[in-house]
Amino acid sequence: MGDPAGIGPEITLKAWDHLKTTSEHQFAVIGPLSVYEDAAKNLGLCGPLAITAIDQTAKVFGIALPVIDQGRTSEITPGHPSSAHAQHITRSIEHGTQLCLRGDAAALVTCPIAKEVLYRAGFSHPGHTEYLGALTENTAMMTGEPRGPVMMLAGGGLRVALATVHLPLKDAAARLSADTIVHTTKVMHAALKKDFGIAAPRIALAGLNPHAGEGGALGAEETEIINPAAKALRDFGIDVTDAQPADTLFHAQARKGYDAVLAMYHDQGLIPVKTLDFHGGVNITLGLPIVRTSPDHGTAFAIAGQGRANPESLIAAITAARDISTSRHHA
Amino acid sequence: MGDPAGIGPEITLKAWDHLKTTSEHQFAVIGPLSVYEDAAKNLGLCGPLAITAIDQTAKVFGIALPVIDQGRTSEITPGHPSSAHAQHITRSIEHGTQLCLRGDAAALVTCPIAKEVLYRAGFSHPGHTEYLGALTENTAMMTGEPRGPVMMLAGGGLRVALATVHLPLKDAAARLSADTIVHTTKVMHAALKKDFGIAAPRIALAGLNPHAGEGGALGAEETEIINPAAKALRDFGIDVTDAQPADTLFHAQARKGYDAVLAMYHDQGLIPVKTLDFHGGVNITLGLPIVRTSPDHGTAFAIAGQGRANPESLIAAITAARDISTSRHHA
Repeated sequence: MGDPAGIGPEITLKAWDHLKTTSEHQFAVIGPLSVYEDAAKNLGLCGPLAITAIDQTAKVFGIALPVIDQGRTSEITPGHPSSAHAQHITRSIEHGTQLCLRGDAAALVTCPIAKEVLYRAGFSHPGHTEYLGALTENTAMMTGEPRGPVMMLAGGGLRVALATVHLPLKDAAARLSADTIVHTTKVMHAALKKDFGIAAPRIALAGLNPHAGEGGALGAEETEIINPAAKALRDFGIDVTDAQPADTLFHAQARKGYDAVLAMYHDQGLIPVKTLDFHGGVNITLGLPIVRTSPDHGTAFAIAGQGRANPESLIAAITAARDISTSRHHA
Repeated sequence: MGDPAGIGPEITLKAWDHLKTTSEHQFAVIGPLSVYEDAAKNLGLCGPLAITAIDQTAKVFGIALPVIDQGRTSEITPGHPSSAHAQHITRSIEHGTQLCLRGDAAALVTCPIAKEVLYRAGFSHPGHTEYLGALTENTAMMTGEPRGPVMMLAGGGLRVALATVHLPLKDAAARLSADTIVHTTKVMHAALKKDFGIAAPRIALAGLNPHAGEGGALGAEETEIINPAAKALRDFGIDVTDAQPADTLFHAQARKGYDAVLAMYHDQGLIPVKTLDFHGGVNITLGLPIVRTSPDHGTAFAIAGQGRANPESLIAAITAARDISTSRHHA
């Protein structure tokens, strides 16, 4: 569900409307039925239908949005977030995760949440991605594979994973370590094979500094941290470059040289993806025992309930979730 | 000239070959004639012709590349940079600057240099741009206008200036100040009017941190430095935004909302320009008493002398120099 006061309910209904005639993208949403009834009325779309178990999805999907109903809730008004909704939000995430861990659902797609809303209600994780890491930790420990969560953005012909994520810029350099780069790259490498069906993934590492440090003149992290990590990874058999100047790493010709990039900080990875493909970008969590994707935008409280929200990124997230679960199934 | 061992001579000849039939883009190059004779032979293009003063350019341009000959030099081999070339490189810059300051030339376009080559010969400026700032300082003091140099990149429908330039990433946050942002934005504002003919320039400020600091949770520079600078600028009558999340600032729809962006650090500005337009990007120095542009790539020693260098960025730099000098002339 994501935050019910954001654009989540609207884009969920629009995505259902767009996908309702397909047989391969069927989904159910976990949340209060009334939220989707109100949104459908607002949008002039068919009303949703409550289901009691996810295996009823296929029967309903062609005629209505299937909702695994969370029951009554306090008043929810689009554009007015409230900590009173926090329990519905976190329970929706937990329920969806359980369905995937049990194998009843093939993938989890999450609509945007606003962290402040959850923090005020006692939520203690930095974000969605880390929460899912905690919820699936016990299962992940059993698989023996390189374990995430690692955040990847995909869009505009690019796949970019992040070595550091939600940090002030001044702390990103301090937080970078060879261990982080080695671990994150191993998770990416395993995911590119298993989730994207790439037999021999090629990974490019972005430099941290302008001109990738220009041989040390503009920063030492390339020679002291990134390139030693790259060498260790190559010794381990992973096809990875030394640190590359980030400004010349993302244009059309450069993109042919790799399957994915590891960016060293948030905006370095998100600027090229969102510049190339603002509406269709997808956030994919690598290294979880479940398949999880989400749109790469926020709750957009400012336009919630106005019928103007673009469902393209959610549709892309649903499609990516389907593709990844198919790929894992055949791996 | 730039560094004669890089791709400068090759792209200069290719640019001349591309522009030789036009009457509005005529230029002469300042360097040793032999460098351009060798490059022309290599490329199978017509040989260059020496001229003794820049006012002979128009007479020669339709039939040969005009060269203001610097005379004999030690051996120059493409791909083999040497500090022995440093004097030719710096004199070419000084000579071109003098021609512009005197009004004999309309603009200076500089081919790429490699700073290490010049440093070893005693050059003490961080780069080309700062050197030109020093060379034109006395004249600039007389104009009373907001004084640069400020580095702007243009390409792919974007104009991005930089608040900090060639610094290790970990130092960029520490170097940012409200004074720097106010001063840089004033230089941009004046240049957008005078050099680009925009009557009421709209400038967007990028945030430094992910999500523009998310209200302080991901960094304080937005609330403590950037937004107060923006308010001071608006009080001064300049149309400028508060700090915007950088990842959603550069896509096609967003670009319609401003005439230029001030990026807070090197890669934040260069990633979107070079991702959108790798070959056609131009580096423009704002706030100098002379017009100065350059291609936005480096010397590319690795491919020098092989005939493979792409002149598109240099041609775009020459075109931009022409456009800006025309705009200044009519301002």
